Amino acid sequence: MISFMSDYAQGAHPRMLQAIAAASYEHNECYLEDVHCVNAAKLIGQRLGKECFVTFMPTGTAANLAVIGHFLKPHQAVISADSGHISTNETGAIEATGHKVIACPSENGKLTVETIKKALADHWHVPYVVQPKMVYISQPTELSTLYSKAELTAISKLCREKSLYLYVDGARLGMALAAMQDELTLADLAELTDGFTIGGTKNGALFGEAVVIANLLLAEDFLFSVRQRGAMFARSSTLGIQFEEFFKDNLYVELGDHANRMAKLLKEGMVRSGFTLYPEPETNQLFVNLDNKLIERLSKDFTILIWQGGEATSLVRLTTSWATTEEDVRLFLAALA
Amino acid sequence: MISFMSDYAQGAHPRMLQAIAAASYEHNECYLEDVHCVNAAKLIGQRLGKECFVTFMPTGTAANLAVIGHFLKPHQAVISADSGHISTNETGAIEATGHKVIACPSENGKLTVETIKKALADHWHVPYVVQPKMVYISQPTELSTLYSKAELTAISKLCREKSLYLYVDGARLGMALAAMQDELTLADLAELTDGFTIGGTKNGALFGEAVVIANLLLAEDFLFSVRQRGAMFARSSTLGIQFEEFFKDNLYVELGDHANRMAKLLKEGMVRSGFTLYPEPETNQLFVNLDNKLIERLSKDFTILIWQGGEATSLVRLTTSWATTEEDVRLFLAALA
Amino acid sequence: MISFMSDYAQGAHPRMLQAIAAASYEHNECYLEDVHCVNAAKLIGQRLGKECFVTFMPTGTAANLAVIGHFLKPHQAVISADSGHISTNETGAIEATGHKVIACPSENGKLTVETIKKALADHWHVPYVVQPKMVYISQPTELSTLYSKAELTAISKLCREKSLYLYVDGARLGMALAAMQDELTLADLAELTDGFTIGGTKNGALFGEAVVIANLLLAEDFLFSVRQRGAMFARSSTLGIQFEEFFKDNLYVELGDHANRMAKLLKEGMVRSGFTLYPEPETNQLFVNLDNKLIERLSKDFTILIWQGGEATSLVRLTTSWATTEEDVRLFLAALA
Amino acid sequence: MISFMSDYAQGAHPRMLQAIAAASYEHNECYLEDVHCVNAAKLIGQRLGKECFVTFMPTGTAANLAVIGHFLKPHQAVISADSGHISTNETGAIEATGHKVIACPSENGKLTVETIKKALADHWHVPYVVQPKMVYISQPTELSTLYSKAELTAISKLCREKSLYLYVDGARLGMALAAMQDELTLADLAELTDGFTIGGTKNGALFGEAVVIANLLLAEDFLFSVRQRGAMFARSSTLGIQFEEFFKDNLYVELGDHANRMAKLLKEGMVRSGFTLYPEPETNQLFVNLDNKLIERLSKDFTILIWQGGEATSLVRLTTSWATTEEDVRLFLAALA
Repeated sequence: MISFMSDYAQGAHPRMLQAIAAASYEHNECYLEDVHCVNAAKLIGQRLGKECFVTFMPTGTAANLAVIGHFLKPHQAVISADSGHISTNETGAIEATGHKVIACPSENGKLTVETIKKALADHWHVPYVVQPKMVYISQPTELSTLYSKAELTAISKLCREKSLYLYVDGARLGMALAAMQDELTLADLAELTDGFTIGGTKNGALFGEAVVIANLLLAEDFLFSVRQRGAMFARSSTLGIQFEEFFKDNLYVELGDHANRMAKLLKEGMVRSGFTLYPEPETNQLFVNLDNKLIERLSKDFTILIWQGGEATSLVRLTTSWATTEEDVRLFLAALA
Repeated sequence: MISFMSDYAQGAHPRMLQAIAAASYEHNECYLEDVHCVNAAKLIGQRLGKECFVTFMPTGTAANLAVIGHFLKPHQAVISADSGHISTNETGAIEATGHKVIACPSENGKLTVETIKKALADHWHVPYVVQPKMVYISQPTELSTLYSKAELTAISKLCREKSLYLYVDGARLGMALAAMQDELTLADLAELTDGFTIGGTKNGALFGEAVVIANLLLAEDFLFSVRQRGAMFARSSTLGIQFEEFFKDNLYVELGDHANRMAKLLKEGMVRSGFTLYPEPETNQLFVNLDNKLIERLSKDFTILIWQGGEATSLVRLTTSWATTEEDVRLFLAALA
Repeated sequence: MISFMSDYAQGAHPRMLQAIAAASYEHNECYLEDVHCVNAAKLIGQRLGKECFVTFMPTGTAANLAVIGHFLKPHQAVISADSGHISTNETGAIEATGHKVIACPSENGKLTVETIKKALADHWHVPYVVQPKMVYISQPTELSTLYSKAELTAISKLCREKSLYLYVDGARLGMALAAMQDELTLADLAELTDGFTIGGTKNGALFGEAVVIANLLLAEDFLFSVRQRGAMFARSSTLGIQFEEFFKDNLYVELGDHANRMAKLLKEGMVRSGFTLYPEPETNQLFVNLDNKLIERLSKDFTILIWQGGEATSLVRLTTSWATTEEDVRLFLAALA
Repeated sequence: MISFMSDYAQGAHPRMLQAIAAASYEHNECYLEDVHCVNAAKLIGQRLGKECFVTFMPTGTAANLAVIGHFLKPHQAVISADSGHISTNETGAIEATGHKVIACPSENGKLTVETIKKALADHWHVPYVVQPKMVYISQPTELSTLYSKAELTAISKLCREKSLYLYVDGARLGMALAAMQDELTLADLAELTDGFTIGGTKNGALFGEAVVIANLLLAEDFLFSVRQRGAMFARSSTLGIQFEEFFKDNLYVELGDHANRMAKLLKEGMVRSGFTLYPEPETNQLFVNLDNKLIERLSKDFTILIWQGGEATSLVRLTTSWATTEEDVRLFLAALA
């Protein structure tokens, strides 16, 4: 079976395991104070262009709920696209920390200045209406689209005018950075946001997300929240080592780039075969309507995700990763034909 | 530096990394449905003597808060020794899920039938007093002591009479099973409790805890809670692979046994040198009062944990692990002399 | 100033205060165990046609959050119309107890079998999607519309098929019962739902809501939740006395009927003057678009609620109550002309 | 039956009901913006000596959980005497908002500078230990004792040194102010604390507590929390009217004084009869060990609270209130003899 199911169906990139193995007999500090976490934070910090707080957490949902729970007061809510990960795929994790997710209509996974303004207008500042205080976006979005730097800048500007925090879920940030190499940097994100994550799990780490808090006022005591949410790794060097690998050279962006290129190959092949992809994929996920019989046939050799099932056709998601090979793509395109 | 700071200061046991590396290019299911998690659950299940629900989580705190939050209704509380991990070292994680921890006085880390009865008497069944519904114990305790099988049985009996759930935090269960080989088995725990954990992090895994829910009525939808708490691993095969290693032979108990034996060597050496350990260590942690000057001198070559600081002397904790060598112990004893 | 702002802008019905005053020197039990609460629960119980649990709480939001928090497990969510009170006007109270409100599009304030089915389809039973477990509706709705008995029956049937709890917010139930006298009774609600409230605050009580739990399995320990949420009145006789007044004869429905009749007078007058009301009011609230200049002029003598402000016109809500007089209506219609 | 069960077993003081009745036909603003709330806040404000935020809530538990939830961040905890109301009698309400209550040993219901320092030492500033950020005391305490002004000042000083908030639960503040007329004023409390409540329920109001936030930084958006917790009264004028009555003259202190005097009469009679009261009552509650047979006999004519039941004797609590008469006391003393 070849998997286009997700970008975490295969294991970690070999460099991750080699580095972890090499450190097995070191005696390290724990709980995010080990030399590897300290060094990884420094390596990331060098790319941020300003002083930020950087730490490491095991999963994206843990990062989202710890950050949102730490930033907001009890009566405050977070604005998200209705397709946002926190709105649809985290089992109510944000609500379980006490905060409403204000889900805004979106066709391509993106919030706009207009939809945010609409959400603010719908939640005016009176005590019987929950108070929007944060904007959550994903870069790239759950639908494989990207915010341009201009779009990010406009949203950032609005957030500052309206005293909203801006938080970017970067579960697949490697793919975004790879796709926007001349346009968007980590330093831009540090400048434009109050916080963001740098996803490892979906980009070749065994697991792990870096959390960057750019607004230092909000970083105070953040590790208490990490611990309280059950997300502080004892043997944290395992997290630090992996992010050292990502950032001691350009591995993080290279792996994102590989996934994007495999997605492009796949897309080009499918378009040649007459399939229409929507929305236009900008990173490593393709959405396409396929005949259910075709899906059934493909499912003998390939695992793919049914995004939205239908009677005759279904919307499926195809995902590439650091581990996808050209051969995997070629075989899939052949099977499709 | 040689670490006696904790049982997670060094890396994972080599078999863990080898097995993870060997699976790197597999295309696996995700979110705890992969073949490795399924197989590891089966291997554990074979030792439980009855049908239980088994799954895997990244950290002990995540397991504790997910289990307790899933078992209890909002007005219910959990009874713990005042030295219990949930009471002292999880940053209020249980309270953050909404539940009071009723902390009971204990000298050696253990609850007794009497202390539990006292807690029940103090929280009689009226709506303005929180309702005790669960007993939390650790085996071994945070103070390195063990509940005998008779003690566990008595607590279990009381819990069933009083309709209390019994949950055992097994962060260091490997050491308990090793120390009580003829007395206590996983099947005993499945019989006596409603749920327990099998700790990996402190026993040679890179990370990870198995959660066993023995009371199947309480297991319904548990994975929703795992996900909601940010504790569902995407690349869950990493968890499953490690617990396959632990339980495909007797590795889990062997590693606990090694840690216990190193602790025994250390204890015997210290006792010979005139030190008094309290409480009497039954597993892999030693507590001893040392002169602060001695601590300072030792700290040049060894990392140790100050459990309770004092003006002239301090209570320190020394912990051994799967990775502690006889040489480590010999060097420490020599430095002590 | 004459208020059409809300149905709680004026004080309580004289019978409420007289009865409270008459009991001033009684020595009563407290915390919902006093004879008045017991008797009021019995009076309500006699109209329910089956054994239910009945108690009393100070506010509608407290009742909603206590009931929803008590019924649901942490990973479960409640389905509501997007105009539902819990979705829009309770400052995220339900989320603050940890539960997501799944807001469904609705034009007239009502959920339908189809919208509920759609919500279920969007939240299929997988651990990374929150689990819908309850349907929340208001009778009448926040937009003054009513569910017919047939509609309620269809929703109830769906809920039972899908193992969803059905909960009815009856903040203005007096108006619904008055408007549907031959169609809907309290016994019908007890039969069709798992729980509902009987609102006092908006129907002439000084304050207070009765909570009826028709599904006795869900009633267990409910008073613990009442207390935990800060909603258990010490001098609870004040609540019981008022609900005795409502239900020792037909006062509860009579006051709702008065409010409805005043609304009807108002509506007829406005329609005669050429105004269009939308949605068609079925109880005591009217929604109408008025010219902003007209609103400004009216605001000198009348208080009215701007429901949705606009540049030239605004949607306003006019509410009548037990205390609205025909003279109040006449004066308003005259001012409008 | 004559009740010494609590200070809310009888109804409200006649002036409360008269004032509420007099306002029945007014058309008022709602949700704490009505003229009565505004005026009552002003009357209280005039006694505070500095600008504070003042609002009104229905119950003491609601006030406690709203204030504590609003002041604290998720990882922060509140220090309380182990007999504190939030620790024992609120069904885990504070934990249900996510915060641990650190219960400190106390014999007479009071925290001391030393016990607070001990709690701080036990919870040093590391991310795996919950962070104490608030001190909660009751004035008078649940055991009828009083903090002297010197004691309050010392605790306040410590709190400011250690960046802890100080919050005073004044459920029976009327009795404290009456007992300490030359020593403690509302202005002192505003000076020494970050917030406190002025209890109405236990001092002759039908219900209701004033919340005073003296630290204005913490008051921001407090009404959002009031609403979110289900504690914002729609017909809030009912709250405002009662606090106008309390503070338009000296009624608040006079009623507390009456309760204290009745308690003193009762105490003197009991002491004369050879009973020993412990702790020495300073306000309106007496604690005394009585023979169970005597309790049974007394219970025919009087309701009293069993504070702690025993086999032969039980600790009972006797409470006087604004409504207790000298005749009530005389009859009880006669029955006791």
